[in-house]
Amino acid sequence: MDGKKRAVVLLSGGLDSATVLAIARSQGYEIYALSFFYGQRHVWELDAAKNVAAALGVTQHRIAEIDLRIFGGSALTDEEIDVPKGRAMDEMTHSIPITYVPARNTIFLSFALAWAEVIESSDIFIGVNALDYSGYPDCRPEFIEAFEKLGNLATKAGVEGRLRLKIHTPLIALTKAQIIAQGVKLGVDYGLTSSCYDPSPAGEPCGECDSCLLRRKGFRENGMEDPLRYRRGGF
Amino acid sequence: MDGKKRAVVLLSGGLDSATVLAIARSQGYEIYALSFFYGQRHVWELDAAKNVAAALGVTQHRIAEIDLRIFGGSALTDEEIDVPKGRAMDEMTHSIPITYVPARNTIFLSFALAWAEVIESSDIFIGVNALDYSGYPDCRPEFIEAFEKLGNLATKAGVEGRLRLKIHTPLIALTKAQIIAQGVKLGVDYGLTSSCYDPSPAGEPCGECDSCLLRRKGFRENGMEDPLRYRRGGF
Repeated sequence: MDGKKRAVVLLSGGLDSATVLAIARSQGYEIYALSFFYGQRHVWELDAAKNVAAALGVTQHRIAEIDLRIFGGSALTDEEIDVPKGRAMDEMTHSIPITYVPARNTIFLSFALAWAEVIESSDIFIGVNALDYSGYPDCRPEFIEAFEKLGNLATKAGVEGRLRLKIHTPLIALTKAQIIAQGVKLGVDYGLTSSCYDPSPAGEPCGECDSCLLRRKGFRENGMEDPLRYRRGGF
Repeated sequence: MDGKKRAVVLLSGGLDSATVLAIARSQGYEIYALSFFYGQRHVWELDAAKNVAAALGVTQHRIAEIDLRIFGGSALTDEEIDVPKGRAMDEMTHSIPITYVPARNTIFLSFALAWAEVIESSDIFIGVNALDYSGYPDCRPEFIEAFEKLGNLATKAGVEGRLRLKIHTPLIALTKAQIIAQGVKLGVDYGLTSSCYDPSPAGEPCGECDSCLLRRKGFRENGMEDPLRYRRGGF
């Protein structure tokens, strides 16, 4: 191992994780980016993840295939459940939406932990946010702390004292507008990212799902134009 | 949901998990058995898992495909690392072997948690054992407790108080001989199970890896014959 510290960065291809990747790089980490094909209907985000990884510069980018459709239970993995559209801000931030995927962040962090152990890294970055999605249980600080504790008990590297797991959540207390402002400062090209839960077959964002609405609000609050073209609602 | 309690049982197809499944059934649970194809070289165990599930009677059996080969770092998923053979009992139980798969039980339990949430179950059964494999960090009681805490913070069902996760580890303090004795009492046909880390292409167990050696010792201590035919070492 050379001197540079390595970090596993969970990269969905969305606005948040692209910003997290840029933050980890700016802190001097060598980046091992990890994405998932989990049967999500918004599989366009994986192309976005590849483009973001290439643009920001990573040491390795791996896509793990894990089919969460075998369990169902979420609008993101079950074609028979509709993605909610046009919800009010209050409605989307104060209850757990149907777009919640059971145990998803637990699964993602478990894979990140495995890779971190193999590459002898103690650092995992994840773009969870407790403000915009206060409804998602696995985006809260107490969940992250519990996973850190687990990770140190779970691994050979942890038990032998070589790994002291730190899960970095640089966005956890930021608004979407603050996240965008920070990413722009770090040179993130948000035109490469993909946030929509329900894009058209050609990858065009719907403009009306919770994720699109929050993103567009974030750009508006910065007095900026979102570089993406939306199916509905213009800029 | 009807009155019968549901449990997710992690079923590898080995001796331990078959016994756990029988125990869960004997406690009155409806069984949702979960196996993994994770790139293991001993993929024969998945056939064993199907046969065990069919013989013991389960409500559903799912096999999740998750390719842990993308990370490497274990003799079980990397063809270039040899499975150790003919080790002394002391050697195999007092250090973490190369057959350790980084974060494997964390990953398996994460998937079990996802399924448990979808089927509205609070009960996960796993055949970890802290005696025979004291070297595996993710087989210890403190790891299991940490995962229970995490699971209750991680899920919508946990946050809403509908799920109070209990991870059952009925084998954790048993010797292999005691596990076998209990399984025999519950009618487990160990001829259906597969324990070897390095079976022949035809599925024949090697007889010499840590897992074969521990298993054979367990049968010997019960004064029983292992119903499996080994490549080496006879009965």
